[in-house]
Amino acid sequence: MLQLMAFNAAYAQIIDSDELERWPACFTEHCHYRITHVENEQEGLPAGVVWADSRAMLEDRIAALREANIYERQRYRHLLGTPHIESADAHSASACTPFMVARIMGTGETMLFATGHYNDRFVMEAGRLLLAERVAVCDSTVTDTLMALPL
Amino acid sequence: MLQLMAFNAAYAQIIDSDELERWPACFTEHCHYRITHVENEQEGLPAGVVWADSRAMLEDRIAALREANIYERQRYRHLLGTPHIESADAHSASACTPFMVARIMGTGETMLFATGHYNDRFVMEAGRLLLAERVAVCDSTVTDTLMALPL
Amino acid sequence: MLQLMAFNAAYAQIIDSDELERWPACFTEHCHYRITHVENEQEGLPAGVVWADSRAMLEDRIAALREANIYERQRYRHLLGTPHIESADAHSASACTPFMVARIMGTGETMLFATGHYNDRFVMEAGRLLLAERVAVCDSTVTDTLMALPL
Repeated sequence: MLQLMAFNAAYAQIIDSDELERWPACFTEHCHYRITHVENEQEGLPAGVVWADSRAMLEDRIAALREANIYERQRYRHLLGTPHIESADAHSASACTPFMVARIMGTGETMLFATGHYNDRFVMEAGRLLLAERVAVCDSTVTDTLMALPL
Repeated sequence: MLQLMAFNAAYAQIIDSDELERWPACFTEHCHYRITHVENEQEGLPAGVVWADSRAMLEDRIAALREANIYERQRYRHLLGTPHIESADAHSASACTPFMVARIMGTGETMLFATGHYNDRFVMEAGRLLLAERVAVCDSTVTDTLMALPL
Repeated sequence: MLQLMAFNAAYAQIIDSDELERWPACFTEHCHYRITHVENEQEGLPAGVVWADSRAMLEDRIAALREANIYERQRYRHLLGTPHIESADAHSASACTPFMVARIMGTGETMLFATGHYNDRFVMEAGRLLLAERVAVCDSTVTDTLMALPL
């Protein structure tokens, strides 16, 4: 549990301190990353607000964000709960971790932007813990068009 | 501390994923559960917004919620802090744990609904950690009439 | 990591339960405590909203707060993330820990007041973990005039 918590702390810090170029390295090369919401997920709809199935796609996304410059006007602050571990062995773990994310605009306005949970599958690769899969399931269905930074 | 954190992660997930029927099983048969606020608690007033002294009463509460269907229009998202352990031995522990709870309405509107701390007494029963007592002390005095789901 | 988490849990509880007189004892005698915001910090500006370089200054601050009685009308609720440990040995540790702080007014109104991260340096003194340095870097630049309680 402590390893997952340390991983999640590093993951959140990368996003919240605007070191987005380091974010794809949290994932395996062939990974699955998706932002969706709870209704979509319960109905088994595969599509999400954001979707990627390789580290290269995550890198593309960050490059696009940097080019669009949207991200400059806002910051995120992630607060993550304790992972609820569903299964774990020496090489992998499945866990569910709640999140609250605040968004801080350039004007200083702060709002509770997104809440939800991560459905995660972690693997050990060459002694490093990596995400083979992270599905960020948002509780609300209405933040879609505002998604700029990764959750 | 890790055991309490894992317990709390499971507890929060049960409520936030709408598996409310599993919630009473977090408690001992003769338990004490109460939602109150900090002013009431400081004045030693025993009454709270919600009050139960057995697992059966908690089961009744969930059944009533399901019947009233109030819960369908809203979800909670709990974020719990690290337990501050006041005392612990092999069979029991007393701890104080801060919480923030967001409420997500069917419309998607998200608000910081309740903040406060749990005053908890845990016991080990047949190798399982259970709550003998959980008093959810809210920081604000004005959310009372909105309480539907457990904290 | 668990030691830092336990320390932070106690630190937050001291502030949130209005035991402010115990707050300076979280620090070494010659400490550095500062509240600032991310833009100031990135530009290397030393000044902050709040600034102290000894435990005695922290004690003075609490005494002033008590005299001004400002604090009576509001409470804070800290939720702290997992510390991201940058370096650690047997005697000290540097860590970065995210926070969300809600403010609860006497009227019951609750708002997400401040988000950010602590840049911390911990030391062991006579077997006790203490803060030699805590810089609370807020994400937003506009809460300055409202700062009353410590972060």
